[in-house]
Amino acid sequence: MIRNTFGDLFTVTTFGESHGPAMGCVVDGCPAGLPLDIEIIRRDLQRRRPGGPAATTRIEADEPEILSGVFQGKTLGTPIAILIRNTSQRSTDYDSLRDLYRPGHADWTWETKYGVRDHRGGGRSSGRETVGRVAAGAIAKVLLASSGITIRAWVAAIAGIAAPGPEDPGFDLDEAERNLLRVPHQETADRILAEIERLRASGDSAGGIVCCSTTGLPPGLGEPVFGKLDARIASAMLSLGAVKGIEFGAGFKAAESFGSEQNDRPIPGYTNPAVDLRRPRAPILPEGIPDIRYHTNNAGGVLGGISTGMPLEFRVAFKPVPSIMQQQKTTDRRGIVRKLVIRGRHDICIVPRAVPVVEAMTALVLADLLLLQRASRV
Amino acid sequence: MIRNTFGDLFTVTTFGESHGPAMGCVVDGCPAGLPLDIEIIRRDLQRRRPGGPAATTRIEADEPEILSGVFQGKTLGTPIAILIRNTSQRSTDYDSLRDLYRPGHADWTWETKYGVRDHRGGGRSSGRETVGRVAAGAIAKVLLASSGITIRAWVAAIAGIAAPGPEDPGFDLDEAERNLLRVPHQETADRILAEIERLRASGDSAGGIVCCSTTGLPPGLGEPVFGKLDARIASAMLSLGAVKGIEFGAGFKAAESFGSEQNDRPIPGYTNPAVDLRRPRAPILPEGIPDIRYHTNNAGGVLGGISTGMPLEFRVAFKPVPSIMQQQKTTDRRGIVRKLVIRGRHDICIVPRAVPVVEAMTALVLADLLLLQRASRV
Amino acid sequence: MIRNTFGDLFTVTTFGESHGPAMGCVVDGCPAGLPLDIEIIRRDLQRRRPGGPAATTRIEADEPEILSGVFQGKTLGTPIAILIRNTSQRSTDYDSLRDLYRPGHADWTWETKYGVRDHRGGGRSSGRETVGRVAAGAIAKVLLASSGITIRAWVAAIAGIAAPGPEDPGFDLDEAERNLLRVPHQETADRILAEIERLRASGDSAGGIVCCSTTGLPPGLGEPVFGKLDARIASAMLSLGAVKGIEFGAGFKAAESFGSEQNDRPIPGYTNPAVDLRRPRAPILPEGIPDIRYHTNNAGGVLGGISTGMPLEFRVAFKPVPSIMQQQKTTDRRGIVRKLVIRGRHDICIVPRAVPVVEAMTALVLADLLLLQRASRV
Amino acid sequence: MIRNTFGDLFTVTTFGESHGPAMGCVVDGCPAGLPLDIEIIRRDLQRRRPGGPAATTRIEADEPEILSGVFQGKTLGTPIAILIRNTSQRSTDYDSLRDLYRPGHADWTWETKYGVRDHRGGGRSSGRETVGRVAAGAIAKVLLASSGITIRAWVAAIAGIAAPGPEDPGFDLDEAERNLLRVPHQETADRILAEIERLRASGDSAGGIVCCSTTGLPPGLGEPVFGKLDARIASAMLSLGAVKGIEFGAGFKAAESFGSEQNDRPIPGYTNPAVDLRRPRAPILPEGIPDIRYHTNNAGGVLGGISTGMPLEFRVAFKPVPSIMQQQKTTDRRGIVRKLVIRGRHDICIVPRAVPVVEAMTALVLADLLLLQRASRV
Repeated sequence: MIRNTFGDLFTVTTFGESHGPAMGCVVDGCPAGLPLDIEIIRRDLQRRRPGGPAATTRIEADEPEILSGVFQGKTLGTPIAILIRNTSQRSTDYDSLRDLYRPGHADWTWETKYGVRDHRGGGRSSGRETVGRVAAGAIAKVLLASSGITIRAWVAAIAGIAAPGPEDPGFDLDEAERNLLRVPHQETADRILAEIERLRASGDSAGGIVCCSTTGLPPGLGEPVFGKLDARIASAMLSLGAVKGIEFGAGFKAAESFGSEQNDRPIPGYTNPAVDLRRPRAPILPEGIPDIRYHTNNAGGVLGGISTGMPLEFRVAFKPVPSIMQQQKTTDRRGIVRKLVIRGRHDICIVPRAVPVVEAMTALVLADLLLLQRASRV
Repeated sequence: MIRNTFGDLFTVTTFGESHGPAMGCVVDGCPAGLPLDIEIIRRDLQRRRPGGPAATTRIEADEPEILSGVFQGKTLGTPIAILIRNTSQRSTDYDSLRDLYRPGHADWTWETKYGVRDHRGGGRSSGRETVGRVAAGAIAKVLLASSGITIRAWVAAIAGIAAPGPEDPGFDLDEAERNLLRVPHQETADRILAEIERLRASGDSAGGIVCCSTTGLPPGLGEPVFGKLDARIASAMLSLGAVKGIEFGAGFKAAESFGSEQNDRPIPGYTNPAVDLRRPRAPILPEGIPDIRYHTNNAGGVLGGISTGMPLEFRVAFKPVPSIMQQQKTTDRRGIVRKLVIRGRHDICIVPRAVPVVEAMTALVLADLLLLQRASRV
Repeated sequence: MIRNTFGDLFTVTTFGESHGPAMGCVVDGCPAGLPLDIEIIRRDLQRRRPGGPAATTRIEADEPEILSGVFQGKTLGTPIAILIRNTSQRSTDYDSLRDLYRPGHADWTWETKYGVRDHRGGGRSSGRETVGRVAAGAIAKVLLASSGITIRAWVAAIAGIAAPGPEDPGFDLDEAERNLLRVPHQETADRILAEIERLRASGDSAGGIVCCSTTGLPPGLGEPVFGKLDARIASAMLSLGAVKGIEFGAGFKAAESFGSEQNDRPIPGYTNPAVDLRRPRAPILPEGIPDIRYHTNNAGGVLGGISTGMPLEFRVAFKPVPSIMQQQKTTDRRGIVRKLVIRGRHDICIVPRAVPVVEAMTALVLADLLLLQRASRV
Repeated sequence: MIRNTFGDLFTVTTFGESHGPAMGCVVDGCPAGLPLDIEIIRRDLQRRRPGGPAATTRIEADEPEILSGVFQGKTLGTPIAILIRNTSQRSTDYDSLRDLYRPGHADWTWETKYGVRDHRGGGRSSGRETVGRVAAGAIAKVLLASSGITIRAWVAAIAGIAAPGPEDPGFDLDEAERNLLRVPHQETADRILAEIERLRASGDSAGGIVCCSTTGLPPGLGEPVFGKLDARIASAMLSLGAVKGIEFGAGFKAAESFGSEQNDRPIPGYTNPAVDLRRPRAPILPEGIPDIRYHTNNAGGVLGGISTGMPLEFRVAFKPVPSIMQQQKTTDRRGIVRKLVIRGRHDICIVPRAVPVVEAMTALVLADLLLLQRASRV
């Protein structure tokens, strides 16, 4: 994880600049024998593609090509390289930015670090960099699915307009995939849509919150003390350019609360239907340990950095897109204060498009931990 | 960072269980020639030791011994092993917990993962595990100090009682080290003290918020795209047992905000006093890039995962200590629901003691990135 | 280095199966600002291509495409992905091998490990896998050249017919690049050529020795105790499919020798011509240490795992190509003993083509250590 | 494996200087639930201790203390730290060497790299550094033994005097543990003893060859293309200070040989006694692949970097101990050529003591690969 490789056993290396020839990834460590259809990858790339009211009008085909690692529909255990050509660059949009450092962007930090910079579309600091992550995440999802694990993310709020949460009867995860904003509640989606139109008119942009949850996640995933499940998820999410915060379960609210309220209580996990519900007693698992679940999930599915078997639940805060259409002030390469008007095709809010990216990064973390878990016992 | 090693170039491996013979760490990759006095390590270990109204009465000497890597007061470039003996265990306090899974603790997850568990004091999932981190962090701080970088953390809130922030005239960081709660405001400290006494009486516990900031942090630290500064800090903080969330700069508030409000604007960095303040123009640094700072720091000192030269600023949410003195219900190893009363010596709120731990982990991240930065250009 | 990534700071990940769509690599960690011309890569790929009497008649174009990481002729500090399409596969040559395990090949071990196998041309266990290494190594060579370091390998022997060594006046490294066998001595090349014709007639194959040496290698490279220069070179060479041994400097002869014969004696390094040769005294380097060289180089340029400033010198043993044209016996997938006749286009001796591969792997090791060395002192 | 950590899943970090307070190691990634008795560690440390005619008279107690990771006789899945105090230092023996660079030693390279150096006994470049490796290797051996894998090394030659090999009826591995030279043939041991006495009289030292072999090694271990079994073993062996070469199976002889001679032919593995020997047919393993062994083992148990199920066989060349008792010439820190007489207590030949070290490093490699292998298939 020094730079462009993520993971320990199930690893992905991504490459590509926004306006260079191509984006892509190399997945190394995917177990052999996994059925893999390129359609799976294409589908998640499509979910990430622009579309809907909040998105840019730069539309890339995002057509993946598998270069290696798959033979007769199955993974070989060798590196899986995936290539996605950039085809819709309009680099001239960025000519005027060659010598300017855009507010809220990584232009100056990047140039300070490396001495050189690809100014076209932000180069590698562009959100387009996540294409390779989504392709790799699609493979990780297949591996997880083969163990019964699924991941679902959705937009919980944009510009402070929040949708009902999973505990609310109005919450509808299917709706989140139907509307282009990925909000699990039609009425909230409509209100956000109105706000986005207002922002478009004023040349402004908005941030938002993505929530993520899992089903079927077994207990035992996570590698204390530095490779804890939550530490790895946090690292994965903060590696996304626009993310400014993350919280698990009760999150920041837990900090204002008391132990008597927060403690998740172990209770028998009634996976064995033969157990008498009136006299709760957990079935004993083959390894001699009782099958436990927890009365509440304030922990968000992780205790001591290890998954509890409850859903992994976290919320990620995205800042507003810094490329706004209003005139701004900044400083140029000669050190002179200048006025700046950004052109190009930009999202007003990238949060809907971030949903498959959050899922992909979560999948990469969980696939890695699933493989690591195989080494934890004699 | 698979398990018990943190960092890429400046690395630390920690070891030890709460009631085992010893805790410790091995720091590998500390550059040679760094003056290192064991007093520096001892001092931060003392800051982490119990003391004050919120802390446990288990008092360990926490006396460090340097086993290797230092010769005639300087680092050799070889691994620096530090040993801290456990001397004040009262393991019998935990005999009754051998077959019980404590609510809010990692007892069951640990046992599910590994099949075996050291039940005494939580074993390695104890907060005592951070002793090795603090010792290593003290060395990292010396390296950072030699580059003019300092790190300061403090308690921003406990149980929802918040101290004034750095923008408030009442904020006093020296006060944070004077009072035992590490709150940078005497009156707030008093109010929190009263709340802690109330919690003690009711057998309850509290969570809180730790803030962290830096001075002297140069721009350019951070390794995109997966080793970004904020991704590494997030990983470091979430690797602490009680942490449930982190946010940088404007954090979760940024998600409710607009680009026009959030964008940090590059302005000339007036480090060169010869520059005429009426006609702002940034001095050009030796490498041909202007010396920039930012008009605001909503980003918390990091853009595109690279430090901006502004202070790194983040907030960490700690959940309440799960070991409360009230009677609780849980499930035992045979799967039977049981009543539980926890004995032993426990903190009512570990947040004050977490301050040096947050600093230590921050120092480890920054020291590592400082060394990695040396490889970023020809 | 778990699987398909090599290096710590200057890293390469390779991908591709012999008869899949493409081969390639991703170089991550190349410092920013390095001038990089694709011609450099193309040239080393050409050196690796078949040609000459000992080589296969499968001729791939081996045309590299840079997909990322280079902008306006300079490296960006981002991952450099290089794509090389496979264009000359004749996979049907391998249809008869689908259910057979070839003697001396990795067919059965690969299938045992992964359960699946791409039988076409050996899949990823093919020598063609080295294409990505050579492309990456070409970039590493550019970085090394910018520090004055060059690497030269040559064929020292084939089928037991040995060329004169560097200490012999007949040794001519330019000759090694002129003749197609990469033997630094015309007469020896002729004798080997005759032997290869004999082997072609008898359907047999031959092994050989590649030697490698450096110029301009500074002292101080190598990361004790597990990342020693020689340990990394050994790992790099043994990661090549046909390599069965390596020795540094005096190598196996040292094991039969005495300390009084082997000890390389530090002598003044007369880099400062002002020093009086009659009263040898080493000039003192800026850091206060004398400029030393060694009277002999039995160590092969490495002491304690750290480069001495003398040339790094090692010899690598390659086994004969296992694909011979003689009828052989083997066992098939059903467990039945079978006769086997290999078709396809195969090298009689891959040792000449291994020369640029040995150079590439050496370059990757040295580039990595050069960057790591920057972190060794305060 | 950047510096002082070895391995990917089963990892060891070693620490300690020859004349510092202590040596030791931290093993991270040993699976939980492994029975571990400190006697196992003590026994291998004893095998490494001086003793016998070729060894130094510095006798350390080498008493290990387990600081963490073991509870009630079983591993916890947490880091296992082992401490071995240095007790018999006579650092004043080295006072005269403070400003001298010993021939054949790493004194100058170390000082050039790090700027500072612990001159006492070679500091960390001392052979004493292997104590931590042997302790860790003992744990790895326990893990391997639980899978039926054993490792045996022995001295094959000293000063050119070679013992009979395993194919010779006189070869006796038990004898190797009986005599203090670890030579598997009494008469050869006697001849070597005479040679060592001669060397002692003349103040000289000798090198030698260690051979290593395994029993019970399953096929499938090794992680192509950069984590191949032989690449990892080579890296492990060359990380030992005195090693100058390694060869697997036929080794350097293979380079002089032909494919028709070298190819190891797959034959039915008669592990199933029910198979009719007159009509050889391999039993089909549960995963649908035939049970194969090889007619010969020229490959030394590894094909394509993956274990074949045949014994892993390799030979390691050790150079003579550079600390000889004869007067030598060298150059001092001021750059002046000086005469040098080494005092202190030194081995005449460390090869017998290297036997448990070679075994330990082999065990560390195999334990790591055994765990990695668990991740290779769905």
